[in-house]
Amino acid sequence: MKPREPLRIAVVGTGRMGADHVRRIDRVVNGARVTAVVDVDAERAKSVAAGVDGCTAHTDPAAAMASADVDAVLVASPGPAHEAALLAAFEHDLPVLCEKPLTPDAASALRVLEAEQALGHRRVQVGFMRRYDAEYVRLKALLDSGRLGRPLMLHNRHRNVASSPFFTSAMLISDSVAHEVDATRWLLGHEITAVTVLRPTPSSGAPEGLRDPQFVVLETDGGAISDVEIFVNCGFGYQVQAEAVCERGTARIGDGHALVTHTAGHWGGTITQDWTERFAQAYDDEVQAWVDSTRRGEVDGPSTWDGYAAAAVCEAGVRALEEGSRVEVDLVEKPPLYR
Amino acid sequence: MKPREPLRIAVVGTGRMGADHVRRIDRVVNGARVTAVVDVDAERAKSVAAGVDGCTAHTDPAAAMASADVDAVLVASPGPAHEAALLAAFEHDLPVLCEKPLTPDAASALRVLEAEQALGHRRVQVGFMRRYDAEYVRLKALLDSGRLGRPLMLHNRHRNVASSPFFTSAMLISDSVAHEVDATRWLLGHEITAVTVLRPTPSSGAPEGLRDPQFVVLETDGGAISDVEIFVNCGFGYQVQAEAVCERGTARIGDGHALVTHTAGHWGGTITQDWTERFAQAYDDEVQAWVDSTRRGEVDGPSTWDGYAAAAVCEAGVRALEEGSRVEVDLVEKPPLYR
Amino acid sequence: MKPREPLRIAVVGTGRMGADHVRRIDRVVNGARVTAVVDVDAERAKSVAAGVDGCTAHTDPAAAMASADVDAVLVASPGPAHEAALLAAFEHDLPVLCEKPLTPDAASALRVLEAEQALGHRRVQVGFMRRYDAEYVRLKALLDSGRLGRPLMLHNRHRNVASSPFFTSAMLISDSVAHEVDATRWLLGHEITAVTVLRPTPSSGAPEGLRDPQFVVLETDGGAISDVEIFVNCGFGYQVQAEAVCERGTARIGDGHALVTHTAGHWGGTITQDWTERFAQAYDDEVQAWVDSTRRGEVDGPSTWDGYAAAAVCEAGVRALEEGSRVEVDLVEKPPLYR
Amino acid sequence: MKPREPLRIAVVGTGRMGADHVRRIDRVVNGARVTAVVDVDAERAKSVAAGVDGCTAHTDPAAAMASADVDAVLVASPGPAHEAALLAAFEHDLPVLCEKPLTPDAASALRVLEAEQALGHRRVQVGFMRRYDAEYVRLKALLDSGRLGRPLMLHNRHRNVASSPFFTSAMLISDSVAHEVDATRWLLGHEITAVTVLRPTPSSGAPEGLRDPQFVVLETDGGAISDVEIFVNCGFGYQVQAEAVCERGTARIGDGHALVTHTAGHWGGTITQDWTERFAQAYDDEVQAWVDSTRRGEVDGPSTWDGYAAAAVCEAGVRALEEGSRVEVDLVEKPPLYR
Repeated sequence: MKPREPLRIAVVGTGRMGADHVRRIDRVVNGARVTAVVDVDAERAKSVAAGVDGCTAHTDPAAAMASADVDAVLVASPGPAHEAALLAAFEHDLPVLCEKPLTPDAASALRVLEAEQALGHRRVQVGFMRRYDAEYVRLKALLDSGRLGRPLMLHNRHRNVASSPFFTSAMLISDSVAHEVDATRWLLGHEITAVTVLRPTPSSGAPEGLRDPQFVVLETDGGAISDVEIFVNCGFGYQVQAEAVCERGTARIGDGHALVTHTAGHWGGTITQDWTERFAQAYDDEVQAWVDSTRRGEVDGPSTWDGYAAAAVCEAGVRALEEGSRVEVDLVEKPPLYR
Repeated sequence: MKPREPLRIAVVGTGRMGADHVRRIDRVVNGARVTAVVDVDAERAKSVAAGVDGCTAHTDPAAAMASADVDAVLVASPGPAHEAALLAAFEHDLPVLCEKPLTPDAASALRVLEAEQALGHRRVQVGFMRRYDAEYVRLKALLDSGRLGRPLMLHNRHRNVASSPFFTSAMLISDSVAHEVDATRWLLGHEITAVTVLRPTPSSGAPEGLRDPQFVVLETDGGAISDVEIFVNCGFGYQVQAEAVCERGTARIGDGHALVTHTAGHWGGTITQDWTERFAQAYDDEVQAWVDSTRRGEVDGPSTWDGYAAAAVCEAGVRALEEGSRVEVDLVEKPPLYR
Repeated sequence: MKPREPLRIAVVGTGRMGADHVRRIDRVVNGARVTAVVDVDAERAKSVAAGVDGCTAHTDPAAAMASADVDAVLVASPGPAHEAALLAAFEHDLPVLCEKPLTPDAASALRVLEAEQALGHRRVQVGFMRRYDAEYVRLKALLDSGRLGRPLMLHNRHRNVASSPFFTSAMLISDSVAHEVDATRWLLGHEITAVTVLRPTPSSGAPEGLRDPQFVVLETDGGAISDVEIFVNCGFGYQVQAEAVCERGTARIGDGHALVTHTAGHWGGTITQDWTERFAQAYDDEVQAWVDSTRRGEVDGPSTWDGYAAAAVCEAGVRALEEGSRVEVDLVEKPPLYR
Repeated sequence: MKPREPLRIAVVGTGRMGADHVRRIDRVVNGARVTAVVDVDAERAKSVAAGVDGCTAHTDPAAAMASADVDAVLVASPGPAHEAALLAAFEHDLPVLCEKPLTPDAASALRVLEAEQALGHRRVQVGFMRRYDAEYVRLKALLDSGRLGRPLMLHNRHRNVASSPFFTSAMLISDSVAHEVDATRWLLGHEITAVTVLRPTPSSGAPEGLRDPQFVVLETDGGAISDVEIFVNCGFGYQVQAEAVCERGTARIGDGHALVTHTAGHWGGTITQDWTERFAQAYDDEVQAWVDSTRRGEVDGPSTWDGYAAAAVCEAGVRALEEGSRVEVDLVEKPPLYR
């Protein structure tokens, strides 16, 4: 693969998550293209492929991976299908981004682990996307900096508005708390050694028979405690919060204030020092919006009239500053082109 | 231009802002390429072009725009050079994204306005990037919804850590307040009719002779008042805040809580209803990171070991839930490949 | 007056504010009694006096002040009656707490000022109660500490749900902004040298003909600017906010977070260091509640059962700590006395 | 006891807490006096009594309670002395406010419980002062209102800067978590049925050998879970936080924002509707400060000059409003009396 050529990706699984990844690679991500999609449902695969230039549809992952124009694989099929897809990718020695869970149980995960070792090099990135969330990244960097001392406890909240109809009590652990399991391991750098699950009387907002909420306590080999409130029918919103309690302070994310710390007599957060940081995303979005509208042959966004009006007001403002008085603004009549 | 082909862009001006736009189009934005860069400094143009596949360097904007592989122009040269670049783009009927200011004064802006009208269709988007900031976008949507009633006042704060050495008292208005001038016009949908500038005793943190801070009051043709604190040597951080005071409530952005409203007895904000909203950016960043590392031939991010450990902990957790007791986690030894 | 005897107070005016002060002195304040009340409405004076042990009713302030059992005067009559009440108090050389405004206009205030000077010593405290509000007191202390440098600007918000029917456009200044006038003078230690009033289109929530909101800009002899949004029919709540912008940081009160500062890269507030500070008011309220219920011959609050249950749970907790296991709590049956 | 006479209180124990209660009754609380103090240290008792008008010193609680001028008893001696003091108070049938703990263990608490039942009526209020804290009171009212549905979980944080040198691992439970034990019982209206204590590796900020922090999980007979982080050497501040997770939303106190709820898509708090609520404490403090300074023969607070200056500025403001222009303020020279 030449370094500046786009990465050619086969997406395995075109359900909600897979189709969203296809859109993401096609429309958002820089430097990649979807060249193949795979689904056991041939119609769905064809329909998704039809929306992407130069993309073929397949029902067999191995066939897609064998194709000459595939450099990498994104696995977004249901969990039980992951093991086969991963082993196929290993056969073609292709890099894989595999949605979580790696596989549905420890035994199959162990088989994948052994197959990758047999290959002799790492090929898999697992889709624990919280490691890419800006707030988690800042919390991790703060913990790693040692500024707050050793982490002693991690308090986690994970709330969903409502669970899918097929959700079981065990899935609160294996589907939902799985994120906090990885977050605890990653943030603390510890392995988890024991699990306790407390079971309050279920909420009347939960479906009959579902143990919701649960309160999970994880112990780690570093001597820390990580507790998780998991509540998948809380009714009011989607919330993911984490608070690390360390020897010299605490740090909390997920309250909508980015990272808030409590240290030596003070609580608060940091202030951006620069507009490039505060408005970085706005610049990216501005240029992306301009590229997208221009490719559609349209002109959107602030117009020449807006540029002119700003120039006229600023001119009046500078006079008001110099003269220390109120200055009226005199604009030409707004031309029809800009109405 | 075929709709699915990348947009080919000439970037005029390769200073700090222009170079950053080149990087953005080359590495971040989807669906576009930089095919030409222009700078009066030929060496700088060449050096920037060298970093981008298939990009040529020019010293004359018109020459670059005449080239066959340019579909659109991004103008990021100094303000006094904008008029010429815009008129050249009009000559080739090319779409332009023009960094603010459109031009440095009302008279030249008026000439551009007339030239675009002579063209008969809009070609220019001015780089008022706050219109693309997520918080401003939410504030605008809230005001447009009418839920808070008519806006009566807008309180703005605009603070920089320190100004550039060449900054003049007039530039606090024409360079900095220019953003609030556009934000006021855009958020309220009003034109500005008068300007008053109050001049407190300058801060001892400001360079000798600079009138900093200033307090600017804008009156609009819709009967609203927009006041702006501009303080470019505040010393402590970069802050942009806006509070709209409407007939039935207020809405504030820039405090680090996204949008906070005050309405009928309540203050607060909204809670995300869905993980696709809360973690949308994390998914984008995850896939981009995977594409970038894979193109470099590297494997980063959560490993197969992380996937296996999560599966083992979740299995133990499900047993802890079912048995109502503490369950220990039993992992295989960590293989060398993952250390 | 013996130092440990209660202060005997005549309250002049028994309208809403006066009656509330009578209640406050009788039930809340330590070390004082109301011995006389005065109102032009003799019935109202009698009715208020009847609720207080050893309190007489009067229609003439001077008569009340002449009585042997009055040590001090609290003036809470309507503004136009203040001058006469103050001069009467001066005649008896009595200390006065005078509700704001001192008098309704500058000329009459000047006469009181001269009368007090003729007396040769200060006798009057004016009821600008914001100087006693915990948040304003903290802001004042911070500004006086010099930690943020010289104050450059003060941004004030003053919002009421709805104004009284008799409120006039001028009263937004003389009744409402009067508080910010004093707060500006007190916080900054400056005199005010000029006033400008901006008049946005009135809110449709304001009564016909009322200029509401207004935006007031005060200039001071110390070179600072203090702006005030006054909006007496905002509809959603009562809000008083102030933000001081200084040479090295800002400090804001009134957002419900006590004092929030922005300094050198950080925003936030202080954390209480001690339970005596955090729960000082709770202790005062606890003992006051116990005294009040005991004087009524009642027993309220946490009972012996609550004390027993806490002891039993803590005993179990200590065992759980020592044994590292879950320990059940065994309580006796709850006796009827505590149900 | 005549209803309007002050309650005459004997305070048992004059250590830090007892002495503070003496000060509170003497200087802050309305309607009560300290007429006797008791301490095994006769010198300390005498020294505290000397500071209070008409207060006698004792070494034996029973002797103090037998005195004719004692209506009620406040017990603030060390925990092991509580049982004897309470039984003595029962003998004289006196109402008691007993600092927590009621007694140090369940067996002695049970004896007190039986003695009070033998008396036939309640006489004891236990000093769980959090029930009087404004934030806890609001949280309790919200839970009792049923607006959020049934409480499912309660997350508590209890952090101290540093523990006393004599603090033991068991005291984290019996002295500190005791507050959360009562708060859990009171807020939820449940009894606690089981306790589990998790023991992370102690913080290096804790004294050698002290198990600090601990993580305590309480189960209740109403099916709720209450978890408590207790960390008595956190180093950074004193923090007490509680978050109730209910069927239809959450409510949190202790973050410095009063009560914050999360319900159906929204987070936030309530806005005061009235100045009497927002500034109630300021009015109380203003009048108390005036009474205190007047009893000392001093005049403090806002002066006649402040009243005059405010009147003059408001007059100028009303003219500025009417004329729509900037109006200068003209003050007389400040007289020496007010400098």
